[in-house]
Amino acid sequence: MTMPVPARSDVLIIGGGLIGLATAWRTAARGISVTLCDPAPGTNASFAAAGMLTPVTELHYGEETLLGLNLASAKRYPSFVAELREASGGLDPGYTEAGTLAVAFDADDREVLSELHVFQQSLGLKAEWLSGREARRLEPMLAPGVRGGLLVSGDHQVDNRMLLAALFAALERDPNATIVRTKVAELTVSAAGDRATGVVLEDGTALSADQVVLSAGCWSGQIAGIPAELLPPVRPVKGQILRLAVPDVFKPFLSRTVRYVVRNNHAYLVPREHGELVLGATVEEQDYDTAVTAGGVYELLRDARELVPGITELPLIESRAALRPGTPDNAPLIGPTALPGLLYATGHYRHGVLLTPATADGVAEILATGTVPEALAPFSPQRFAVPGMRPGRVRRNER
Amino acid sequence: MTMPVPARSDVLIIGGGLIGLATAWRTAARGISVTLCDPAPGTNASFAAAGMLTPVTELHYGEETLLGLNLASAKRYPSFVAELREASGGLDPGYTEAGTLAVAFDADDREVLSELHVFQQSLGLKAEWLSGREARRLEPMLAPGVRGGLLVSGDHQVDNRMLLAALFAALERDPNATIVRTKVAELTVSAAGDRATGVVLEDGTALSADQVVLSAGCWSGQIAGIPAELLPPVRPVKGQILRLAVPDVFKPFLSRTVRYVVRNNHAYLVPREHGELVLGATVEEQDYDTAVTAGGVYELLRDARELVPGITELPLIESRAALRPGTPDNAPLIGPTALPGLLYATGHYRHGVLLTPATADGVAEILATGTVPEALAPFSPQRFAVPGMRPGRVRRNER
Repeated sequence: MTMPVPARSDVLIIGGGLIGLATAWRTAARGISVTLCDPAPGTNASFAAAGMLTPVTELHYGEETLLGLNLASAKRYPSFVAELREASGGLDPGYTEAGTLAVAFDADDREVLSELHVFQQSLGLKAEWLSGREARRLEPMLAPGVRGGLLVSGDHQVDNRMLLAALFAALERDPNATIVRTKVAELTVSAAGDRATGVVLEDGTALSADQVVLSAGCWSGQIAGIPAELLPPVRPVKGQILRLAVPDVFKPFLSRTVRYVVRNNHAYLVPREHGELVLGATVEEQDYDTAVTAGGVYELLRDARELVPGITELPLIESRAALRPGTPDNAPLIGPTALPGLLYATGHYRHGVLLTPATADGVAEILATGTVPEALAPFSPQRFAVPGMRPGRVRRNER
Repeated sequence: MTMPVPARSDVLIIGGGLIGLATAWRTAARGISVTLCDPAPGTNASFAAAGMLTPVTELHYGEETLLGLNLASAKRYPSFVAELREASGGLDPGYTEAGTLAVAFDADDREVLSELHVFQQSLGLKAEWLSGREARRLEPMLAPGVRGGLLVSGDHQVDNRMLLAALFAALERDPNATIVRTKVAELTVSAAGDRATGVVLEDGTALSADQVVLSAGCWSGQIAGIPAELLPPVRPVKGQILRLAVPDVFKPFLSRTVRYVVRNNHAYLVPREHGELVLGATVEEQDYDTAVTAGGVYELLRDARELVPGITELPLIESRAALRPGTPDNAPLIGPTALPGLLYATGHYRHGVLLTPATADGVAEILATGTVPEALAPFSPQRFAVPGMRPGRVRRNER
């Protein structure tokens, strides 16, 4: 079905990953007309991801502010997927609450988990320390040598591919939403340079809107027409990720997400209800390279084998690499920029799936009311403003 | 292009791997009409293979008879591909003469190669012992710890996929040859049960011929209608094999086929001129399972990394499993069976690519003249005749 492209909408969204798609859905649901532009929506990091909703297990020092948003978004998931199921005409977004177990390979790795546990407790987060034997009782496929673990009953998962499918269906059903599968060539601004006015597509089509949301992941810093001093500081962070199949004879293979530390490498296995086992992921600074490499696949399999030797029997059904949008402080850029009419919802790095509800609802609120929800205030794109550069002075791109 | 299926031909060939295709080509070239039946020709082991033509490097104790045929077939390759290039209208069959280097990881592995060298010398085969340093001088990507090697300048390679493409083209150009992309359901025999008369296809079409050649690889023992006592004793032997890409910046990565022994595991890397690097292969008894497994991929990458650490940087572009046709004595079954009109050209196990010229020319000779070339005599299917079972007494399959 090819829909006519509306020359004007209330809101234009550049980029159709989970963040852009969910923002489009939540915004259109408020009666605001939305056009989302992406040549291949739902195919990069959102498609590759493992879908872990694990704010407590993935806690990092110095990221306490982000933790607050992560927890809030995790808490919002049940109602978010319930509404999405309805809006999509009954599609299951694949959200399951089975908890997460983090385990350690050797004594040093156990120390890493133990320090994480202390940090979690200092923040009042719920996590239970288990001996190796207790961990194996929960997950019998764990190696006999496993050195203890951390059970986080509140850290869950969503099947990001089912979530994408539900979002596409919900957008298709919403008369206020349009997806244009064409690349955006340029942001357009007013003659005075004081306001974003829309975009020009790669095929030359000009689309106008009152507000433009940039949610183009690691490509967000490459959109022409954005004033140089406002360009978001996002960079691609490559992740290689594998998918294994669990034949019926081996089921249940794992009953919950298992994260593990092996010789100070962190990785994870996420079991899907339909029998897939997601094995991720490398974290590589390789610019925009998306090659699956012999070394990446080797390291993922090597570390997983140490903790869950039984994976060797499983079919390897997918090897993939995608690009996370990294930022200088590992936190996203969400909210209005210094250029009126231009908002960002990008830079979600390793937390795009988890932060989808909080980002989509928060940005929809800003678009509808002009007010930034308190929870999003710390993530204003304007925290990266370049001192001495006056926002609002727009240099027009030559075409 | 769909060609009409001739209801009658001089020769019917069941199975379109390299053996069946090359036999069809060589037979049709003699003016004999040939119909080859295969639902998916050129897609199993012939497509997956690495294309090594390495009779000397792959020498095994107790297989001296097979060595003779292997050497003869290797020697025939240059003229075989020259004729095929002409018959295909100029397609390059991808034959290259760059030699093969076998290297060892540790002292035990060096001992394995050293014993192989003694055995090679006892048979008058040409192979040169190299120190680790000499091996690295030839192939600078080898790990510093490599413990010596064996250079076999006469062991070469063919790109089996280019070879397949050239064979398809040659068959398409030959008016005596027809490929029918339908599965054979059954061999038919005369009313008296004393002669093979043709086949019935899965769609019910009956095709008749004076002679039928069975070259269905590991499925050769599953064709209905073949008298039970004549069924060839072939079994599937699974091989997992990877293909890496060598980006221009890393070229030349390897200049010749490198075989290696790592902790008594044997594997190999075969560089293609167009920049592919084939990494194989597991040898597994897994019935007809063709899953690529986490463990198979892991072991291939682990062992390759030990000898050629630089592979970690290379894109992994293909993971595949296919089924070799294994036999009780690891040697093929080539020639007439006890049932007149039925010939076998199957069970080539790990040497199908290497033995393609010798098998195709030999079988074409038998089909044309009724005489079995001396070199093929030791590989008669009748060496597996079941004592006490009278060949020729055919039990007709009920349909």
